[in-house]
Amino acid sequence: MPANVTLRLDFDAGRRLGHGKIALLEAVERHGSIAAAGREFGMSYRRAWLLVDELNRMFSAPMVAARGGGRNGGGAALTETGSRVVALYRAAEKTILAGAAAEIDALEALLATSAADASPADPSPLDLSPGELPG
Amino acid sequence: MPANVTLRLDFDAGRRLGHGKIALLEAVERHGSIAAAGREFGMSYRRAWLLVDELNRMFSAPMVAARGGGRNGGGAALTETGSRVVALYRAAEKTILAGAAAEIDALEALLATSAADASPADPSPLDLSPGELPG
Repeated sequence: MPANVTLRLDFDAGRRLGHGKIALLEAVERHGSIAAAGREFGMSYRRAWLLVDELNRMFSAPMVAARGGGRNGGGAALTETGSRVVALYRAAEKTILAGAAAEIDALEALLATSAADASPADPSPLDLSPGELPG
Repeated sequence: MPANVTLRLDFDAGRRLGHGKIALLEAVERHGSIAAAGREFGMSYRRAWLLVDELNRMFSAPMVAARGGGRNGGGAALTETGSRVVALYRAAEKTILAGAAAEIDALEALLATSAADASPADPSPLDLSPGELPG
């Protein structure tokens, strides 16, 4: 199975953009709702809202905006900036997959053939967040 | 400030390779010791050892091996496979930086100029691990 490649961008002032936030934005667009987008990932409304709020403050314009009122009480949608950020991130990911294919294939060829022991039941204690290690 | 780009590879069976593990391997090589490598990142010996153990099982050959005995009680070093994996990962990262520079620059240009509000005192509750979101 080819590797799934994830891109994480660390900008200055601790501003981070990665797979998770982009997927949440895509879900907001799909569902027209922050609450529904959060639910898709088993996230509380508060957590989803905090992430959207962080994203809104991270860029020069909000990425998610309230949409209409109307019968269904309105919802949320991506702004032009939001759509642009999602598109740029996904384009960068595509470029990466194409550009680094040789190295990634070579890494894959070095993997153990039996993965039975390599996948602990609870991977979290071994899940090293890049944030824990400098540089 | 240009963005720091981090590459994360998710292979099958939950096998993951990212910045953190690669940095740990580089530190093992630098210090000649798993314990010292862990200390560099404020990690307990147990945690560093578990990560190395996971890496050793992930690939077709161990990535870290015990080195000599002798007066100083021996230590640890990268194997040929270990060195190769680190080199391939770093090469992929370089290719990415070059290949996706246009998209990353465009994302950077969209950032808010004042980052004061974008960096919470404790970012951890907002630090969305990609593992939490599927696809």
